[in-house]
Amino acid sequence: MPDSFVISVDAMGGDDAPHIVIDGIAHFYEAHAGERDVKFLLHGDKSQLESLLSAAGVTKDHVTISHTDTQVSMDAKPSQALRRGKGSSMWNAIADVKTGAAHVAVSAGNTGALMAMSKLQLRTKTGVQRPALAALWPRQDGMCVVLDVGANIECDAAQLTEFAVMGDAYFRALFKTSNPRIGLLNVGTEDQKGNATVKAAHERLTESKLGLNYIGFVEGNDIAIGDANVIVTDGFTGNVALKTAEGTAKLVKAILEDTFGSFWAKVLAAPSFFSFKAMRKRIDPRLANGGVFLGLNGIVIKSHGGTDSVGFSNALNIAANLAESQFLDEIERTLTALHDEDDNIGFIT
Amino acid sequence: MPDSFVISVDAMGGDDAPHIVIDGIAHFYEAHAGERDVKFLLHGDKSQLESLLSAAGVTKDHVTISHTDTQVSMDAKPSQALRRGKGSSMWNAIADVKTGAAHVAVSAGNTGALMAMSKLQLRTKTGVQRPALAALWPRQDGMCVVLDVGANIECDAAQLTEFAVMGDAYFRALFKTSNPRIGLLNVGTEDQKGNATVKAAHERLTESKLGLNYIGFVEGNDIAIGDANVIVTDGFTGNVALKTAEGTAKLVKAILEDTFGSFWAKVLAAPSFFSFKAMRKRIDPRLANGGVFLGLNGIVIKSHGGTDSVGFSNALNIAANLAESQFLDEIERTLTALHDEDDNIGFIT
Repeated sequence: MPDSFVISVDAMGGDDAPHIVIDGIAHFYEAHAGERDVKFLLHGDKSQLESLLSAAGVTKDHVTISHTDTQVSMDAKPSQALRRGKGSSMWNAIADVKTGAAHVAVSAGNTGALMAMSKLQLRTKTGVQRPALAALWPRQDGMCVVLDVGANIECDAAQLTEFAVMGDAYFRALFKTSNPRIGLLNVGTEDQKGNATVKAAHERLTESKLGLNYIGFVEGNDIAIGDANVIVTDGFTGNVALKTAEGTAKLVKAILEDTFGSFWAKVLAAPSFFSFKAMRKRIDPRLANGGVFLGLNGIVIKSHGGTDSVGFSNALNIAANLAESQFLDEIERTLTALHDEDDNIGFIT
Repeated sequence: MPDSFVISVDAMGGDDAPHIVIDGIAHFYEAHAGERDVKFLLHGDKSQLESLLSAAGVTKDHVTISHTDTQVSMDAKPSQALRRGKGSSMWNAIADVKTGAAHVAVSAGNTGALMAMSKLQLRTKTGVQRPALAALWPRQDGMCVVLDVGANIECDAAQLTEFAVMGDAYFRALFKTSNPRIGLLNVGTEDQKGNATVKAAHERLTESKLGLNYIGFVEGNDIAIGDANVIVTDGFTGNVALKTAEGTAKLVKAILEDTFGSFWAKVLAAPSFFSFKAMRKRIDPRLANGGVFLGLNGIVIKSHGGTDSVGFSNALNIAANLAESQFLDEIERTLTALHDEDDNIGFIT
C-alpha cells in the first residue's frame, strides 16, 4: 500500500449536494480501490451525511465528518461569502489544507466564493498576483489543460507566462508525462497576429531558457483537435471558449436527440445503440470534471456545480493524483526560476 | 420579376477556386431560380472561367467575365496584397461595388487582404474606426449573428456599441425580422462581471433610447443555444469562440466517424442512415457560410476559404438578400443616431 492521502471535502457544495458528494465518494472507492490509500474529511450536516454514507455503503474507517450548520449558497457574491461564510463547509474544507490536516480540498460549490476563500486562507505564492483556474478539456485521445478559464478577467503578459509554467507543472503532475507542449491562444499562428499582451507573452516564452516545450501560438480549434497539451489564455477568453464549447456540444446533443428521439427513429437506430453507448463513454464530459486553482500555497479542486456522482468522483481522483505528486513544489521551483529569468532579462512583472 | 441585382465575384479566391465558384453560381441558380433577377460580374482567368461555365451549364446571359491575370494568394499579408494586388480578381470585384457596377462583392479569398482592400477602396462610414466582420452561427432553429469575429483585435466600448447597432441592422436585413435580441458576450450575466470595456458598453447600451432590443450580458454557451439573435464581442474573443466551436464540432464528427466507421458499425448503423442524413442537413455548416464586413460604404461578403460549391452558393444568397435590402441606408441611419446620442450623453467615441 502506498502512502495515505487525505482529501477534505465541502460536502454541502454543488447543485445536488450532499447526495452526489457521498455517492461520488462511494464511486471513487469502487473505481480506484487499491490504487492508493485515501481518507476523507467531510464538512457539512453530520446527521444528513451519516445517513447518506450508510445508504451508499461507504466504510466508516475512510471518512471523518466535521459538523457545520452553515454553507455558502451557489449564488452568493464572493464578498458576501467572505463576510458571512467563515465556519461554512467550504471554508472549513479549505482550512484543513491550510492546517495540514488535508493534502487537498474539493468543492462543487460557488466558484467565486471558493476562489476568494482559498486566496484568503492559503495566500498566493510569491510573485503571483491572482491564482488561475485551470480546466481539463476532453479530446479524442486524452485531455488538454486550458488556463485561465475565468479567475483573471484581465491579464498582462507576465501573468500569461506564469500560467504557462503553472500549466506545465499541472499537466506533468496529472498525466505523469514530461515536456508537455504549451501553446498560447491567439487569433492566428503568425508572429504578427494578436494583441500587444499575447505578442509580449509570446516573445517572453520564446526567449525563455527554462526548458518549457513552448510551441507558439495556437487557435481556438486547436483546443479540441490540436496537439498542444497546455493552452494558455486570459480568463475572459478562456471562459468564453469553455462555455462556447459546452454550448456547441449541447447543440449537437439536442439535434442528435431530436433526430433519434421519435419512436420510429429509435426503432431504426436501435442496432446502433451499443456504438452510441461506447461513443458517449469516450466523450463523457464528466471525465473532465475538476478545475484546479493554480498559484496558491495549497491545492483546491473545483468540481462543476451541476455534476453528478460520477463527475464528482473524477474530481476526487484528480485531487488524489495531485496529492500524490510533487506538484506544489514543482510550481514553486518553476515560478522562482521564471521570476529569476524575468529579473535577468528585465521583463516587467 | 423583381428588380435586377448585380453581384461581383472574385472568381479566383478560395482554396478550390475557380471551380467551386462556378459550380456555386450554378447551384445558386438551381436553388434560388425565380426568387429574384441576379446577374454576375466575374473577375478572373477568362478562358478558364468560360470553359467551367459551359461545363456547369450556366446561361451566358447571366454572367459577364472581366479578365485578369493576377490574383491574391491565400497566404499573402494584407500589406503585400495592397502593394501588389491592384488589378487582381479580388481588387476588381471590390472596385465594381465602388463604381456602382455591382450591388455587392463576394470573395472566398484571403480574409486580411479582402478586409484591407475593401477598406481602402470603399472607406469606412463616418465615425467607424474599422469595419467589423460578422459571422452567421448555426443553431437548432435558425441562426444568430456574432460580431466581431476577427477584424478588430482590440476594441473599446464605443466600437462594441457600434457593433451592436450594425449587427442589429444586419440581422434585420438578412432575416427580415424586427427587433432582434442583442446580447453582449461576457463571462457571466451579472452587472458586476467582466472587464472595464464590456461594463462600459453594457452601461451605454442599457442607457440608449435608440430602440435596440438589448437583453444584456450573455455567455459563451448562449451563442449556440441561447436566445440572443445578435451577439456582440471584440474580434479577439469572437475569433477564438468561432474557432473553438469549429474545433468542438470537428471533434464530435471525428468521434462519430470513428464510432460508426468500421464495417460492422456501418452495417449496424445502416437503418439510421436517413435520420443521420436529415440531421446533417440541419446542421450543415455550409448553410452558415458568409461573413460580412460591416461599417463600409459598400457590401463585401467573405465566404469561407475552404468552402465547396454549396457553401459558396449560400454566400451568394446572403449577398443577394443584402443587395435587395436597405441595409447600408439602415446602418447609416442607426450609426448616425448612435453618434448623436453619444454626443448628447458625453460618451467618448
